[in-house]
Amino acid sequence: MERNEALALVKPHLKQERYEHTIRVMETAIQLAEMYGVDVHKTELAAIFHDYAKYRPVEEMKRWIQSSYLPKDLLHYHHELWHGPVGALLLERELGIEDQELLEAVHYHTTGRTHMTDLDKVIFLADYIEPGRKFPGLEQVREAAWEDLNKGCWMASKNTISFLMSKNQPIYPETFYAYNALTKQYKRS
Amino acid sequence: MERNEALALVKPHLKQERYEHTIRVMETAIQLAEMYGVDVHKTELAAIFHDYAKYRPVEEMKRWIQSSYLPKDLLHYHHELWHGPVGALLLERELGIEDQELLEAVHYHTTGRTHMTDLDKVIFLADYIEPGRKFPGLEQVREAAWEDLNKGCWMASKNTISFLMSKNQPIYPETFYAYNALTKQYKRS
Repeated sequence: MERNEALALVKPHLKQERYEHTIRVMETAIQLAEMYGVDVHKTELAAIFHDYAKYRPVEEMKRWIQSSYLPKDLLHYHHELWHGPVGALLLERELGIEDQELLEAVHYHTTGRTHMTDLDKVIFLADYIEPGRKFPGLEQVREAAWEDLNKGCWMASKNTISFLMSKNQPIYPETFYAYNALTKQYKRS
Repeated sequence: MERNEALALVKPHLKQERYEHTIRVMETAIQLAEMYGVDVHKTELAAIFHDYAKYRPVEEMKRWIQSSYLPKDLLHYHHELWHGPVGALLLERELGIEDQELLEAVHYHTTGRTHMTDLDKVIFLADYIEPGRKFPGLEQVREAAWEDLNKGCWMASKNTISFLMSKNQPIYPETFYAYNALTKQYKRS
Protein backbone atom coordinates (compact mmCIF):
# COMPACT_ATOMS: atom_id res chain seq x y z
CA MET A 1 0.00 0.00 0.00
CA GLU A 2 1.31 3.45 -0.93
CA ARG A 3 1.46 6.42 1.41
CA ASN A 4 -1.34 8.36 -0.30
CA GLU A 5 -3.70 5.40 -0.29
CA ALA A 6 -3.05 4.83 3.44
CA LEU A 7 -3.52 8.51 4.24
CA ALA A 8 -6.80 8.56 2.30
CA LEU A 9 -8.01 5.54 4.30
CA VAL A 10 -7.17 7.05 7.67
CA LYS A 11 -8.22 10.68 7.07
CA PRO A 12 -12.01 10.18 7.43
CA HIS A 13 -11.40 8.63 10.88
CA LEU A 14 -9.47 11.60 12.31
CA LYS A 15 -10.13 15.23 13.20
CA GLN A 16 -7.96 17.69 11.28
CA GLU A 17 -5.56 18.28 14.22
CA ARG A 18 -5.15 14.54 14.77
CA TYR A 19 -4.50 14.06 11.04
CA GLU A 20 -1.75 16.69 11.24
CA HIS A 21 -0.33 14.89 14.30
CA THR A 22 -0.37 11.68 12.25
CA ILE A 23 1.64 13.33 9.46
CA ARG A 24 4.21 14.55 12.00
CA VAL A 25 4.43 11.10 13.61
CA MET A 26 4.97 9.63 10.12
CA GLU A 27 7.78 12.06 9.33
CA THR A 28 9.47 11.56 12.70
CA ALA A 29 9.06 7.76 12.53
CA ILE A 30 10.62 7.62 9.06
CA GLN A 31 13.66 9.57 10.30
CA LEU A 32 14.02 7.22 13.29
CA ALA A 33 13.58 4.16 11.04
CA GLU A 34 16.30 5.40 8.67
CA MET A 35 18.62 6.08 11.59
CA TYR A 36 18.07 2.72 13.34
CA GLY A 37 17.76 0.43 10.31
CA VAL A 38 14.04 -0.35 10.55
CA ASP A 39 11.91 -1.10 7.43
CA VAL A 40 10.98 2.43 6.30
CA HIS A 41 7.85 1.57 4.31
CA LYS A 42 6.40 -0.55 7.13
CA THR A 43 7.20 2.24 9.58
CA GLU A 44 5.45 4.76 7.33
CA LEU A 45 2.27 2.67 7.23
CA ALA A 46 2.30 1.86 10.97
CA ALA A 47 2.65 5.57 11.75
CA ILE A 48 -0.14 6.55 9.36
CA PHE A 49 -2.48 3.99 10.94
CA HIS A 50 -1.42 4.29 14.61
CA ASP A 51 -4.41 6.43 15.68
CA TYR A 52 -6.96 4.76 13.38
CA ALA A 53 -9.38 4.03 16.27
CA LYS A 54 -8.73 7.28 18.20
CA TYR A 55 -12.26 8.63 17.72
CA ARG A 56 -14.30 5.47 18.14
CA PRO A 57 -16.85 5.97 20.90
CA VAL A 58 -15.72 4.59 24.26
CA GLU A 59 -18.73 2.24 24.37
CA GLU A 60 -17.85 0.80 20.96
CA MET A 61 -14.21 0.23 21.98
CA LYS A 62 -15.45 -1.46 25.14
CA ARG A 63 -17.59 -3.86 23.06
CA TRP A 64 -14.64 -4.69 20.79
CA ILE A 65 -12.50 -5.49 23.81
CA GLN A 66 -15.23 -7.61 25.41
CA SER A 67 -16.02 -9.56 22.25
CA SER A 68 -12.53 -10.22 20.86
CA TYR A 69 -9.13 -11.68 21.72
CA LEU A 70 -8.05 -8.34 23.25
CA PRO A 71 -6.93 -8.51 26.91
CA LYS A 72 -9.87 -7.88 29.23
CA ASP A 73 -7.73 -6.16 31.86
CA LEU A 74 -7.72 -3.09 29.56
CA LEU A 75 -11.25 -2.47 30.84
CA HIS A 76 -9.86 -1.79 34.33
CA TYR A 77 -7.63 1.02 33.02
CA HIS A 78 -8.24 4.40 31.41
CA HIS A 79 -10.00 4.26 28.02
CA GLU A 80 -7.20 6.42 26.59
CA LEU A 81 -5.31 3.10 26.42
CA TRP A 82 -7.95 1.36 24.30
CA HIS A 83 -7.50 2.97 20.87
CA GLY A 84 -4.17 1.19 20.22
CA PRO A 85 -5.40 -2.38 20.73
CA VAL A 86 -8.81 -1.66 19.17
CA GLY A 87 -7.08 0.11 16.27
CA ALA A 88 -4.97 -2.98 15.53
CA LEU A 89 -8.09 -5.16 15.62
CA LEU A 90 -10.08 -2.86 13.30
CA LEU A 91 -7.23 -2.35 10.83
CA GLU A 92 -7.27 -6.10 10.36
CA ARG A 93 -11.07 -6.51 10.29
CA GLU A 94 -12.09 -3.36 8.39
CA LEU A 95 -9.14 -2.76 6.08
CA GLY A 96 -7.77 -6.28 5.74
CA ILE A 97 -4.29 -5.31 6.92
CA GLU A 98 -2.50 -8.53 7.80
CA ASP A 99 1.06 -7.53 8.60
CA GLN A 100 1.41 -8.65 12.23
CA GLU A 101 4.45 -6.48 12.97
CA LEU A 102 2.59 -3.41 11.79
CA LEU A 103 -0.56 -4.36 13.76
CA GLU A 104 1.46 -4.98 16.92
CA ALA A 105 3.22 -1.61 16.64
CA VAL A 106 -0.23 0.04 16.47
CA HIS A 107 -1.53 -2.13 19.35
CA TYR A 108 1.31 -1.19 21.72
CA HIS A 109 2.01 2.38 20.63
CA THR A 110 0.62 3.93 23.85
CA THR A 111 1.72 1.42 26.49
CA GLY A 112 4.78 -0.32 25.08
CA ARG A 113 5.23 -3.97 26.11
CA THR A 114 7.84 -6.33 27.52
CA HIS A 115 9.41 -7.44 24.25
CA MET A 116 9.22 -4.37 22.03
CA THR A 117 10.35 -4.79 18.44
CA ASP A 118 12.37 -2.01 16.84
CA LEU A 119 9.25 -1.08 14.86
CA ASP A 120 7.25 -0.87 18.14
CA LYS A 121 9.95 1.38 19.57
CA VAL A 122 10.06 3.70 16.56
CA ILE A 123 6.26 4.23 16.56
CA PHE A 124 6.05 4.58 20.37
CA LEU A 125 8.86 7.14 20.37
CA ALA A 126 7.78 9.08 17.26
CA ASP A 127 4.32 9.48 18.80
CA TYR A 128 5.95 10.82 21.97
CA ILE A 129 8.47 13.26 20.42
CA GLU A 130 6.82 14.49 17.20
CA PRO A 131 7.41 18.27 16.86
CA GLY A 132 3.85 19.22 17.86
CA ARG A 133 4.19 17.75 21.37
CA LYS A 134 4.90 20.01 24.35
CA PHE A 135 5.36 18.84 27.93
CA PRO A 136 7.94 18.87 30.73
CA GLY A 137 10.99 16.69 30.14
CA LEU A 138 10.31 16.29 26.43
CA GLU A 139 13.49 17.99 25.22
CA GLN A 140 15.67 15.44 27.02
CA VAL A 141 13.68 12.58 25.47
CA ARG A 142 14.05 14.19 22.02
CA GLU A 143 17.82 14.43 22.45
CA ALA A 144 18.04 10.83 23.66
CA ALA A 145 15.89 9.61 20.75
CA TRP A 146 18.53 10.57 18.20
CA GLU A 147 21.34 9.18 20.32
CA ASP A 148 20.04 5.69 21.19
CA LEU A 149 16.65 4.14 20.38
CA ASN A 150 16.48 2.23 23.69
CA LYS A 151 17.47 5.27 25.71
CA GLY A 152 14.79 7.41 24.03
CA CYS A 153 12.06 4.82 24.64
CA TRP A 154 13.26 4.21 28.19
CA MET A 155 13.12 7.91 29.04
CA ALA A 156 9.68 8.23 27.44
CA SER A 157 8.35 5.27 29.45
CA LYS A 158 9.88 6.65 32.66
CA ASN A 159 8.28 10.06 32.04
CA THR A 160 4.94 8.41 31.33
CA ILE A 161 5.00 6.49 34.62
CA SER A 162 6.05 9.60 36.59
CA PHE A 163 3.30 11.63 34.92
CA LEU A 164 0.63 9.02 35.68
CA MET A 165 1.79 8.69 39.31
CA SER A 166 1.70 12.48 39.71
CA LYS A 167 -1.95 12.29 38.59
CA ASN A 168 -2.61 9.40 41.02
CA GLN A 169 -3.50 7.13 38.12
CA PRO A 170 -3.04 3.35 38.03
CA ILE A 171 -0.53 2.21 35.43
CA TYR A 172 -1.21 -0.50 32.87
CA PRO A 173 1.09 -3.49 33.51
CA GLU A 174 2.57 -3.48 29.99
CA THR A 175 3.78 0.08 30.63
CA PHE A 176 5.71 -1.17 33.67
CA TYR A 177 7.02 -4.20 31.82
CA ALA A 178 8.22 -1.93 29.01
CA TYR A 179 10.04 0.30 31.52
CA ASN A 180 11.76 -2.70 33.12
CA ALA A 181 12.77 -4.26 29.80
CA LEU A 182 14.00 -0.93 28.40
CA THR A 183 15.99 -0.22 31.59
CA LYS A 184 17.89 -3.46 31.05
CA GLN A 185 18.32 -2.92 27.29
CA TYR A 186 19.54 0.64 27.70
CA LYS A 187 22.04 -0.36 30.39
CA ARG A 188 23.41 -3.08 28.09
CA SER A 189 23.61 -0.80 25.02
CA MET B 1 5.40 -16.94 71.30
CA GLU B 2 6.11 -13.97 73.56
CA ARG B 3 7.93 -10.81 72.53
CA ASN B 4 11.12 -11.56 74.47
CA GLU B 5 11.42 -15.06 73.08
CA ALA B 6 10.98 -13.73 69.52
CA LEU B 7 13.51 -10.95 70.09
CA ALA B 8 16.01 -13.45 71.50
CA LEU B 9 15.55 -15.63 68.40
CA VAL B 10 16.09 -12.80 65.94
CA LYS B 11 18.90 -10.90 67.72
CA PRO B 12 21.80 -13.23 66.74
CA HIS B 13 20.82 -12.76 63.08
CA LEU B 14 21.04 -8.95 63.09
CA LYS B 15 23.70 -6.29 63.52
CA GLN B 16 23.07 -3.96 66.47
CA GLU B 17 21.76 -1.10 64.27
CA ARG B 18 19.41 -3.43 62.44
CA TYR B 19 18.18 -4.83 65.76
CA GLU B 20 17.39 -1.28 66.88
CA HIS B 21 15.57 -0.68 63.59
CA THR B 22 13.59 -3.86 64.27
CA ILE B 23 12.53 -2.57 67.70
CA ARG B 24 11.38 0.71 66.14
CA VAL B 25 9.46 -1.13 63.39
CA MET B 26 7.80 -3.23 66.12
CA GLU B 27 6.75 -0.16 68.10
CA THR B 28 5.45 1.65 65.01
CA ALA B 29 3.67 -1.45 63.71
CA ILE B 30 1.90 -1.99 67.04
CA GLN B 31 0.63 1.60 67.00
CA LEU B 32 -0.63 1.17 63.42
CA ALA B 33 -2.23 -2.19 64.30
CA GLU B 34 -4.04 -0.65 67.27
CA MET B 35 -5.25 2.22 65.13
CA TYR B 36 -6.46 0.08 62.21
CA GLY B 37 -7.82 -2.92 64.10
CA VAL B 38 -5.15 -5.48 63.14
CA ASP B 39 -4.17 -8.38 65.47
CA VAL B 40 -1.59 -6.70 67.69
CA HIS B 41 0.31 -9.79 68.82
CA LYS B 42 0.63 -11.14 65.28
CA THR B 43 1.80 -7.69 64.16
CA GLU B 44 4.39 -7.62 66.94
CA LEU B 45 5.84 -10.99 65.88
CA ALA B 46 5.77 -10.19 62.15
CA ALA B 47 7.64 -6.92 62.85
CA ILE B 48 10.22 -8.64 65.05
CA PHE B 49 10.90 -11.25 62.36
CA HIS B 50 10.61 -9.08 59.23
CA ASP B 51 14.40 -8.74 58.67
CA TYR B 52 15.29 -12.26 59.87
CA ALA B 53 17.22 -13.05 56.65
CA LYS B 54 18.71 -9.57 56.14
CA TYR B 55 22.31 -10.69 56.67
CA ARG B 56 22.28 -14.01 54.86
CA PRO B 57 24.97 -14.02 52.19
CA VAL B 58 23.66 -13.18 48.73
CA GLU B 59 24.83 -16.54 47.39
CA GLU B 60 22.92 -18.40 50.11
CA MET B 61 19.73 -16.44 49.39
CA LYS B 62 20.17 -17.20 45.70
CA ARG B 63 20.36 -20.93 46.46
CA TRP B 64 17.21 -20.78 48.61
CA ILE B 65 15.34 -19.05 45.77
CA GLN B 66 16.62 -21.54 43.19
CA SER B 67 15.82 -24.61 45.27
CA SER B 68 12.41 -23.69 46.75
CA TYR B 69 8.89 -22.57 45.82
CA LEU B 70 10.06 -18.93 45.79
CA PRO B 71 9.45 -17.07 42.49
CA LYS B 72 12.47 -17.36 40.23
CA ASP B 73 11.95 -13.90 38.72
CA LEU B 74 13.40 -12.48 41.96
CA LEU B 75 16.80 -13.50 40.59
CA HIS B 76 16.44 -10.91 37.81
CA TYR B 77 16.01 -8.08 40.32
CA HIS B 78 18.22 -6.49 42.99
CA HIS B 79 19.20 -8.84 45.83
CA GLU B 80 17.93 -6.23 48.31
CA LEU B 81 14.49 -7.70 47.46
CA TRP B 82 15.47 -11.26 48.42
CA HIS B 83 15.60 -11.09 52.23
CA GLY B 84 11.80 -10.80 52.60
CA PRO B 85 10.87 -13.95 50.64
CA VAL B 86 13.91 -15.89 51.93
CA GLY B 87 13.13 -14.71 55.47
CA ALA B 88 9.60 -16.09 55.26
CA LEU B 89 10.96 -19.43 54.00
CA LEU B 90 13.61 -19.68 56.73
CA LEU B 91 11.27 -18.65 59.55
CA GLU B 92 9.17 -21.64 58.58
CA ARG B 93 12.05 -24.07 58.03
CA GLU B 94 14.44 -22.99 60.80
CA LEU B 95 12.07 -21.76 63.52
CA GLY B 96 8.95 -23.77 62.70
CA ILE B 97 6.75 -20.67 62.40
CA GLU B 98 3.60 -21.76 60.60
CA ASP B 99 1.31 -18.74 60.69
CA GLN B 100 0.84 -18.02 56.98
CA GLU B 101 -0.39 -14.45 57.47
CA LEU B 102 2.72 -13.63 59.45
CA LEU B 103 4.99 -15.34 56.92
CA GLU B 104 3.34 -13.51 54.03
CA ALA B 105 3.74 -10.14 55.75
CA VAL B 106 7.47 -10.89 56.09
CA HIS B 107 7.66 -12.14 52.49
CA TYR B 108 6.12 -8.99 51.00
CA HIS B 109 7.42 -6.35 53.40
CA THR B 110 9.79 -4.76 50.85
CA THR B 111 7.78 -5.03 47.63
CA GLY B 112 4.14 -5.16 48.65
CA ARG B 113 1.87 -7.24 46.40
CA THR B 114 -1.42 -7.01 44.54
CA HIS B 115 -3.72 -8.18 47.32
CA MET B 116 -2.11 -6.86 50.49
CA THR B 117 -3.70 -7.89 53.78
CA ASP B 118 -3.99 -5.29 56.52
CA LEU B 119 -1.14 -7.06 58.31
CA ASP B 120 1.00 -6.79 55.13
CA LYS B 121 0.19 -3.09 54.98
CA VAL B 122 1.05 -2.43 58.62
CA ILE B 123 4.46 -4.13 58.35
CA PHE B 124 5.26 -2.57 54.96
CA LEU B 125 4.37 0.89 56.23
CA ALA B 126 5.99 0.58 59.70
CA ASP B 127 9.23 -0.47 58.00
CA TYR B 128 9.00 2.62 55.79
CA ILE B 129 8.12 5.25 58.40
CA GLU B 130 9.80 4.05 61.63
CA PRO B 131 11.37 7.06 63.41
CA GLY B 132 14.95 6.16 62.43
CA ARG B 133 14.24 6.58 58.70
CA LYS B 134 15.23 9.77 56.88
CA PHE B 135 14.63 10.48 53.20
CA PRO B 136 12.84 12.98 50.93
CA GLY B 137 9.06 12.83 51.04
CA LEU B 138 8.98 10.76 54.24
CA GLU B 139 7.16 13.36 56.37
CA GLN B 140 4.13 13.32 54.04
CA VAL B 141 4.02 9.51 54.17
CA ARG B 142 4.20 9.62 57.98
CA GLU B 143 1.29 12.05 58.13
CA ALA B 144 -0.76 9.95 55.72
CA ALA B 145 0.01 6.77 57.67
CA TRP B 146 -1.94 8.00 60.71
CA GLU B 147 -4.78 9.29 58.57
CA ASP B 148 -5.54 6.32 56.32
CA LEU B 149 -3.70 2.98 56.07
CA ASN B 150 -4.26 2.70 52.30
CA LYS B 151 -3.14 6.27 51.69
CA GLY B 152 0.05 5.74 53.71
CA CYS B 153 0.95 2.54 51.85
CA TRP B 154 0.02 4.06 48.49
CA MET B 155 2.31 7.06 49.09
CA ALA B 156 5.11 4.79 50.26
CA SER B 157 4.81 2.61 47.15
CA LYS B 158 4.68 5.68 44.89
CA ASN B 159 7.83 7.09 46.54
CA THR B 160 9.58 3.76 46.18
CA ILE B 161 8.84 3.59 42.45
CA SER B 162 9.94 7.22 41.92
CA PHE B 163 13.12 6.59 43.88
CA LEU B 164 13.97 3.44 41.90
CA MET B 165 13.26 5.21 38.59
CA SER B 166 15.48 8.12 39.61
CA LYS B 167 18.25 5.53 40.14
CA ASN B 168 17.50 3.94 36.74
CA GLN B 169 16.61 0.66 38.45
CA PRO B 170 14.13 -1.93 37.19
CA ILE B 171 11.11 -2.34 39.45
CA TYR B 172 9.88 -5.70 40.70
CA PRO B 173 6.39 -6.42 39.27
CA GLU B 174 4.77 -6.90 42.70
CA THR B 175 5.83 -3.34 43.57
CA PHE B 176 3.90 -2.07 40.55
CA TYR B 177 0.92 -4.29 41.28
CA ALA B 178 0.86 -2.98 44.87
CA TYR B 179 0.90 0.61 43.60
CA ASN B 180 -1.99 -0.06 41.20
CA ALA B 181 -4.09 -1.89 43.80
CA LEU B 182 -3.42 0.74 46.48
CA THR B 183 -4.28 3.55 44.05
CA LYS B 184 -7.72 2.00 43.57
CA GLN B 185 -8.20 1.24 47.28
CA TYR B 186 -7.16 4.71 48.36
CA LYS B 187 -9.47 6.37 45.82
CA ARG B 188 -12.37 4.26 47.10
CA SER B 189 -11.64 4.92 50.78
